[in-house]
Amino acid sequence: MKLPSLPSWLTHYQRQWLSGDLTAGLIVTVMLIPQSLAYAMLAGMPPEVGLYASVLPLVAYALFGTSMTLAVGPVAVASLMTATALAPIAATGSAEYVALGVLMALMSGLMLFAAGLLRLGFLAYFLSHPVISGFISGSAVLITIGQLKSLLGVPLPSGSALETLLALARSIDKINPVTATIGITSLVFLLFARKQLAPLLKRIGVPAKAADLLTRLAPMAAVIVATAYVTVSGVDRSAGVSIVGAVPAGLPTLTLPALSWQQLDSLWLPALLISLVGFVESVSVAQSLALKRGQRIQPDRELLGIGAANIASALSGGYPVTGGFARSVVNFSAGAHTPAAGIISAILMAMVIAGMTGWFHYLPHTVLAATIIVAVTALIDVDTLKEAWHYDKADATSLLLTFGGVLLLGVEEGIVLGVVLSLAVLVWRSSHPHMAVVGRVPGTEHFRNIDRHRVDTLPGLIALRVDESLYFANAQLLEDKIEGLLQNEAGTRCILLILSAVNQLDTTALGTLTELEKSLASRGIALQFSEVKGPILDRLRSTPLGQRMKDRIFLSTHQAFLGFTDRPSFYTDPPREA
Amino acid sequence: MKLPSLPSWLTHYQRQWLSGDLTAGLIVTVMLIPQSLAYAMLAGMPPEVGLYASVLPLVAYALFGTSMTLAVGPVAVASLMTATALAPIAATGSAEYVALGVLMALMSGLMLFAAGLLRLGFLAYFLSHPVISGFISGSAVLITIGQLKSLLGVPLPSGSALETLLALARSIDKINPVTATIGITSLVFLLFARKQLAPLLKRIGVPAKAADLLTRLAPMAAVIVATAYVTVSGVDRSAGVSIVGAVPAGLPTLTLPALSWQQLDSLWLPALLISLVGFVESVSVAQSLALKRGQRIQPDRELLGIGAANIASALSGGYPVTGGFARSVVNFSAGAHTPAAGIISAILMAMVIAGMTGWFHYLPHTVLAATIIVAVTALIDVDTLKEAWHYDKADATSLLLTFGGVLLLGVEEGIVLGVVLSLAVLVWRSSHPHMAVVGRVPGTEHFRNIDRHRVDTLPGLIALRVDESLYFANAQLLEDKIEGLLQNEAGTRCILLILSAVNQLDTTALGTLTELEKSLASRGIALQFSEVKGPILDRLRSTPLGQRMKDRIFLSTHQAFLGFTDRPSFYTDPPREA
Repeated sequence: MKLPSLPSWLTHYQRQWLSGDLTAGLIVTVMLIPQSLAYAMLAGMPPEVGLYASVLPLVAYALFGTSMTLAVGPVAVASLMTATALAPIAATGSAEYVALGVLMALMSGLMLFAAGLLRLGFLAYFLSHPVISGFISGSAVLITIGQLKSLLGVPLPSGSALETLLALARSIDKINPVTATIGITSLVFLLFARKQLAPLLKRIGVPAKAADLLTRLAPMAAVIVATAYVTVSGVDRSAGVSIVGAVPAGLPTLTLPALSWQQLDSLWLPALLISLVGFVESVSVAQSLALKRGQRIQPDRELLGIGAANIASALSGGYPVTGGFARSVVNFSAGAHTPAAGIISAILMAMVIAGMTGWFHYLPHTVLAATIIVAVTALIDVDTLKEAWHYDKADATSLLLTFGGVLLLGVEEGIVLGVVLSLAVLVWRSSHPHMAVVGRVPGTEHFRNIDRHRVDTLPGLIALRVDESLYFANAQLLEDKIEGLLQNEAGTRCILLILSAVNQLDTTALGTLTELEKSLASRGIALQFSEVKGPILDRLRSTPLGQRMKDRIFLSTHQAFLGFTDRPSFYTDPPREA
Repeated sequence: MKLPSLPSWLTHYQRQWLSGDLTAGLIVTVMLIPQSLAYAMLAGMPPEVGLYASVLPLVAYALFGTSMTLAVGPVAVASLMTATALAPIAATGSAEYVALGVLMALMSGLMLFAAGLLRLGFLAYFLSHPVISGFISGSAVLITIGQLKSLLGVPLPSGSALETLLALARSIDKINPVTATIGITSLVFLLFARKQLAPLLKRIGVPAKAADLLTRLAPMAAVIVATAYVTVSGVDRSAGVSIVGAVPAGLPTLTLPALSWQQLDSLWLPALLISLVGFVESVSVAQSLALKRGQRIQPDRELLGIGAANIASALSGGYPVTGGFARSVVNFSAGAHTPAAGIISAILMAMVIAGMTGWFHYLPHTVLAATIIVAVTALIDVDTLKEAWHYDKADATSLLLTFGGVLLLGVEEGIVLGVVLSLAVLVWRSSHPHMAVVGRVPGTEHFRNIDRHRVDTLPGLIALRVDESLYFANAQLLEDKIEGLLQNEAGTRCILLILSAVNQLDTTALGTLTELEKSLASRGIALQFSEVKGPILDRLRSTPLGQRMKDRIFLSTHQAFLGFTDRPSFYTDPPREA
């Protein structure tokens, strides 16, 4: 793959795009400041690490990605996955923990970039939509439960979602009332802002689009008000409200962590899973936004974009990033035309890191927890469950199992379960193929199911249509079906397989058909094929089975019927059945 | 599932079957004695554990299984997997090691039995034939390399196959010359017996069948001669030849091991993998033998049979068992008619355990190693690789990757890799569907690929045939294909999707089609379907997409073409493209 020197949106940048890009860049930055601090907390990182992950990654994505409106940076699910991977191997928030987070971003970035060079973008579609939905919803519930301790200021041991809830029930008397009051007030305000503020603003005459964007600034407002309150009241000392504390200014000096094989060995799987999830999430957000403007994104190039963003994050002391849903939607609605909006956000975030980190000193953790909870509850998706339940119970079941897997087993186990379920449902479906014995609709060349239509059949001939590709998981069932049919039809001299819906035929199925043909021949029954698809016929011809059957493969079922009428048996002196 | 009280072969046993069953039972026993001792050694178990696994499991399978000729008991691959699972958690051969082996047999048996009650027999077909072939061949090479230390009497550290070979190269001077001489002599004799003895016997007038069976007794002959030699010469003391030593007589008193959660946690995955591999192996052996006599086996009942055999093995102090290839073939050829042959073997083995274990005292380990090596090298399968390479490179590649995975990563990792490869090849194939733009063959109602045939098309209509089920891994490619076509055909007013080869349509694909229909409609382009299969149409009708498209779904492509001629646009005043 040739890497373009500069993206075309940059070389052909038009002046009239600038105002949209500037507005969007500014609004996204105002969202990004509280979110980057909050998601760093969720990832178990010091707050500045969230800021570091919000500068260079945006520039890297702008240069390598293909979406015009995707907003990359710290996101909820990747932060949760980072914390899950690092918690067992380093003390949360320690220098080693941060270094391992940087290492994870680097590994994930290199994996994604390499996958992009190998053109593995199609992997974005290896998770079914219901499984992604169940995974995101489960992660959202898990994150919400995990944030209760910061929201209420109560110390809880780390553990599964259920353990956390039980521990909370036992520690209800240890809740810090001031922390809980600030947190729950913020939560109620943010929920109100999301549901009620926009309609209210519209009613008092604010234009619809401006009203929608204003509601997106609510988290920043909550942060400002709460920080001001804590600064003035001093509840951090008087009532023990947990605050962010000193945040160093400037980017860190770049020091690649000293790597050990053991660390690489324990991080490669989490890095792979974070890459997969982050990539799938990014592509689905980018795609749905691109579709609204009739644009296209290229998954192979997206791998390069998200990969470059993660490498950039690691080089500037950040942790794994990806394209986030909420900020991308705001970026889109605020009128971003090109990734220049992301570069503007990056410049603004760099200014924040250079000179404004002191402002976050008195920011209480509980407000960040409220921000996280409101952000992730918006990700809980019941509609897809309803649709899937209505349309396809197997898909709905895998959604629910993935959701339950994330909650009960954990987020990594949940995504692995999701991949396995996506594939298992696929195999399950095709391993029980629909097969129909057909006959000729009188006076036509059409053949239909004998159970559903009035059709003519020829005595001694069974014509079986297989409505699925033949491969390892279902080839045996075809054989079982044929043996079952033969037991009911004693005088059968010919089995005609109609392969019009067989798009693939793998080595295992070829072996089964080869054995079947021999076994039938030994009982004086001829196996015939009709309507074999071109690509399959090409490969079949050179096999022993194809050689042996070359006079028994018919273009159409009609021709096979005519042939049988002329010559009802291929075996003039059939051996008796054993 | 109703469990039958007694199998029909038993309630309807016919006297003329007895001589075949007796002969087969006797010959299988003579094979089973050295094999059960050898495979116990391979599993890291004391020799008597192999004997224990060769009595009750045979009876249990006879009562629950459906194959007339499958010979269950200790087998090479399951023994290797047992050793791999137990080596990291207990000292090889210790009481705890044996107890954990018994626990694994119990867990595996309960899993298989439960799977049988849940009718999960179709799982037998979730591994493609090339992957099974690669796995078995890889295991055979791994076993052979692992047996070199016993064969040559050289101490080697346990490790990967490559490490073992390197360690052997460095320890070549530490080979025990007497052990190596006995071992290599046995190996040469057994190889000669397998390749040359039967032709030789036939040439001197022995009937073909008898000659084949006599060669199967070679391992027993080697055991007898070598034991006699060691007993007389005393090389176990004078030259340090490793011998089996005291083997206790009688079955052990049944003591279920004290279980800890930690043990269950470290054993459930190995037990699951051993169950899967054992079941797949059993079913494929049982099926190929049943086919030769026109009999059928029922995979759901086989799960009960192999499950019961493992539970029986655990209850009598044995380790995981399954149906073995070599002994089943001998059982079949020796004329076994019913599982009574297995019960006769079990009775004979019980007699050996009761009174003849003293005979094995001076049996040298090197002869057992030679027996194992000769047995497993017969499992190395190059033919399947050749066939797959010729017919389908993707299948050949997954065979080679599984083979390499077993050798380089280990036997458990190898089988997991195999399952993943089986599924990945499946998804890979169907994620790149063949799609063809078609037109009408002049003067007919047939539609063919416009690139291959001279056909008529209608300006403004693109008719696209999709040759694959639509689901999460390929739905997006369909959308990409259509957008690509639209860019080349500016005046398109209608996209007709011909779904004759679409056997499934999952929730993800439904979502993609729903979005596509909306996106096309916004550009004044109508989406139409033709030749939708009945089951898909039934489900589609109740969805929002089906509702919206109900006037645009045609039974045949011909009707869709006629309809387009009558009314070339569904959108009388199409909005302009954005």
